Amino acid sequence: MNEYGLPVSVKKEGFKENNYVEWQIGYDVNWGKKYKKDDKNVKVKKKKDLEKLMETTLENIQFLRPNRTIKSFYELSEYIWYFYKWDIVSRKDLESIIDYLNSISFTNLIDNNSELQIDRSHPIVKNINGLDFEYTQVKYPLLIHKFHGYEIVTEIKITEKQHAIGTQPMLYLCFPITELKMKINLIGRTAETKEIAHFEITENNIKVFLEMLKIFGILSNNHKHDILQIINTILI
Amino acid sequence: MNEYGLPVSVKKEGFKENNYVEWQIGYDVNWGKKYKKDDKNVKVKKKKDLEKLMETTLENIQFLRPNRTIKSFYELSEYIWYFYKWDIVSRKDLESIIDYLNSISFTNLIDNNSELQIDRSHPIVKNINGLDFEYTQVKYPLLIHKFHGYEIVTEIKITEKQHAIGTQPMLYLCFPITELKMKINLIGRTAETKEIAHFEITENNIKVFLEMLKIFGILSNNHKHDILQIINTILI
Repeated sequence: MNEYGLPVSVKKEGFKENNYVEWQIGYDVNWGKKYKKDDKNVKVKKKKDLEKLMETTLENIQFLRPNRTIKSFYELSEYIWYFYKWDIVSRKDLESIIDYLNSISFTNLIDNNSELQIDRSHPIVKNINGLDFEYTQVKYPLLIHKFHGYEIVTEIKITEKQHAIGTQPMLYLCFPITELKMKINLIGRTAETKEIAHFEITENNIKVFLEMLKIFGILSNNHKHDILQIINTILI
Repeated sequence: MNEYGLPVSVKKEGFKENNYVEWQIGYDVNWGKKYKKDDKNVKVKKKKDLEKLMETTLENIQFLRPNRTIKSFYELSEYIWYFYKWDIVSRKDLESIIDYLNSISFTNLIDNNSELQIDRSHPIVKNINGLDFEYTQVKYPLLIHKFHGYEIVTEIKITEKQHAIGTQPMLYLCFPITELKMKINLIGRTAETKEIAHFEITENNIKVFLEMLKIFGILSNNHKHDILQIINTILI
């Protein structure tokens, strides 16, 4: 459990029983910004977002950020949408997440938590190969939440924002490779080029994804707003 | 000095006297791989490398990696090349770097140094907003070397390799914004859109760049090989 984040070369070393998959799961695709109510000139600009738009089955299910960015459902929001339509996720399940998120104050959000800031040790002098250096350790918080009764865990990495000021929590879903569905068992062998494995989301593990929605919602004010918008869009 | 790496919004807050520029200086551009001695089918593939090739003035001054990748001179190697041709950097200066690097054993290279590894604290249980987490600190080494008599420092950040196993030291050159040449003084004002500032490399600070060459050479075995190849190419 203390080895999360250590990468493994699956084409050289092969798969081992204790290997985990780290999935940076998303919940939205960014469209452009909408300036007027009937603005039809919104265009997706980033290549990554165009790729995600090709993948989602719910391009037309959208919500709006306070900054007027339009977002479509993608991954996590898609799964919850379908499981709600199939009556596996209930209205009560989703309303309890709304109540929970509304009970979390601004100062208790992960990116505002004073115990979860990036920390630097006091510099000490170190001579390395004849050159003097000031040595500091930069310490990033890592949080792991275990889902009771499941082999799945979620990981929150807190890093600096890129090209901006402040911290940025990122969420990963981790599960053992034994959860992957494959034609040929993975353990003990190496990966083939472009080999694909499947992870099945079913009524048996959808509770984990509902918990993920909750955890996303406490990362930051923007995340909280997005998750509330997603749930309200599903419940309409 | 303990605030290196904290970004500043120069368009909102404006420039302050103690602001620093962090420059991830490079020394090469990657071409493709050469399989035969007179192979003419080597093609630059990455967009970033194509952009760097447009910038370098020494596209035709090349060296070879043991894995047969061809590299052109760029930034640091360009500067040293010209200052050697102009008789400001001497043969003795460069030969002393060769001697220094040859004296550093494989186990003393930065990426092999056992005191400079990425470290994780033992996990402790933390309840955040009603959810149980295991909290760990992931500690990355940061080294700062000051050049005596200059306002310039160099910074080595040690991080995980992306898409691979092991650590990866990255080198930055940092200097106070007061070293920048501008038409209008920067201090106390914000940056204009697409405003450009210049940093001058002269016989007064070229010693810093010779030291950078040394420090690049002790980062890893590949870096050491590259720097020795660059110096030998200059001295031929």
